Amino acid sequence: MLIVGERINTSRKRINEAIANRDMAYIQAEVRSQLDSGADLIDVNAGSRHRSEVDDLLWLIEIIQETAPHARLCIDSPSPESLKAVLGKVKHRPMLNSTTGETARFEGMVPIIQRRDCDLVALCIDDRGIPKNENQVLENAARLISDLEALGMKRESIYIDPVIQSVSTNTKAGLMTLAAIERVRREFEGVNVICGLSNISFGLPERTLLNRAFLTLAMKSGLNSAIVDPLDKKLMGTLRATAVLLDQDRWCQAYTAAFREGKVNQRPE
Amino acid sequence: MLIVGERINTSRKRINEAIANRDMAYIQAEVRSQLDSGADLIDVNAGSRHRSEVDDLLWLIEIIQETAPHARLCIDSPSPESLKAVLGKVKHRPMLNSTTGETARFEGMVPIIQRRDCDLVALCIDDRGIPKNENQVLENAARLISDLEALGMKRESIYIDPVIQSVSTNTKAGLMTLAAIERVRREFEGVNVICGLSNISFGLPERTLLNRAFLTLAMKSGLNSAIVDPLDKKLMGTLRATAVLLDQDRWCQAYTAAFREGKVNQRPE
Repeated sequence: MLIVGERINTSRKRINEAIANRDMAYIQAEVRSQLDSGADLIDVNAGSRHRSEVDDLLWLIEIIQETAPHARLCIDSPSPESLKAVLGKVKHRPMLNSTTGETARFEGMVPIIQRRDCDLVALCIDDRGIPKNENQVLENAARLISDLEALGMKRESIYIDPVIQSVSTNTKAGLMTLAAIERVRREFEGVNVICGLSNISFGLPERTLLNRAFLTLAMKSGLNSAIVDPLDKKLMGTLRATAVLLDQDRWCQAYTAAFREGKVNQRPE
Repeated sequence: MLIVGERINTSRKRINEAIANRDMAYIQAEVRSQLDSGADLIDVNAGSRHRSEVDDLLWLIEIIQETAPHARLCIDSPSPESLKAVLGKVKHRPMLNSTTGETARFEGMVPIIQRRDCDLVALCIDDRGIPKNENQVLENAARLISDLEALGMKRESIYIDPVIQSVSTNTKAGLMTLAAIERVRREFEGVNVICGLSNISFGLPERTLLNRAFLTLAMKSGLNSAIVDPLDKKLMGTLRATAVLLDQDRWCQAYTAAFREGKVNQRPE
């Protein structure tokens, strides 16, 4: 599992304040603790600060790379213009989060992909909106993959996001996503599948309980990357335990190491 | 999901003491709290008290049926003789836990099955021992099902236990069990699959974390019954959440009811 740490996001109040105050120490500590907890990439999102997004991203990229010179970044913005404006500052091969199959958004991404070798999160949304069923997810995935391959992108660089919907409005939404993940991984060998998990539980109580169980199910279906809070011990515990159960953790090494370092153990029962 | 409450078991120290002291109030409270937490059946196991097992079971059955006259019981003993000796006292249709494909143990069960309509847990073990791979689980299941059907038992009364082994000694054990569960449910339509979960995590730290994730995976594969502690809020939370995600909980009704009654909510994150 490739783990993208989601904490550097202006939708978090404390992060938003730290960015507004240019509180470098706070942001850098957040970055280091995510890496220390198992994040493979650091997501960087200043999307809620519309007017200053590009300046904020440039500052964030600079101070993150200063404290974590080897860290890979996931630059997170719906705006191709913002991505284009900051990409030159990113030292290592970036992940871009995200494009969709919507005409304008995809076309805005084309020159970026052509200029820089990167990983790309591609959401299964097109001009018709959010997919209504498993086949529409697959159609969107197929079109995104073939359009991205036509631009020279390798399948291994593509991270398909099937766009999770809440089970509270459609009780079949979870099964639909699981089936779609399985098919994307089977029908497009080499392509990765990524998810933000929390939409699954929108509108229900004890959301983290549903998010964790869905992570387990999605990993079985073929999810091989997730955007999560690596400091969430319960979620990371579920992730590491599921990897053991699915024979994705040789000799249970990552699990037992995480346990020894106090990173998966739960409060007493 | 059919939930068999596992707490009345002499391997629990406090239960063993209560039985030794004929502490009726303690046992009856344990029964009521399990039913109140969602148990569909109450497992009754005095197996560790070899010399007095039958007497203990008779006493337990009597006082459990006194406090919970509508409850169904799951009489849990490896000994056909013990099961035969107490079965007459069981008011409602019993579940018997368990038989195997081992010749002596199966043959001991035949007259019991012929005398009383019951549900039966059948472990996929035969004279060769614990199954070594998915095909052996299936072979054992096939033989048990055909032998039980030949005795007039309906598939709907058969609960196949695939016999979980620990991932700590064989990292493929989890995947093997999941594949076996899927195949049993698909190839023998109508048959139920039941598990005790905790073997999966034997030898590893934070076992309950692995047990919970495995419950989620097993339910997706077709597990439709489990022997669990219904007072374990974390496990029951996982079970109810997974049922929501798999579209097994109409309108999320059981989940939200359990939440309102404080039965799935976790400690603050």
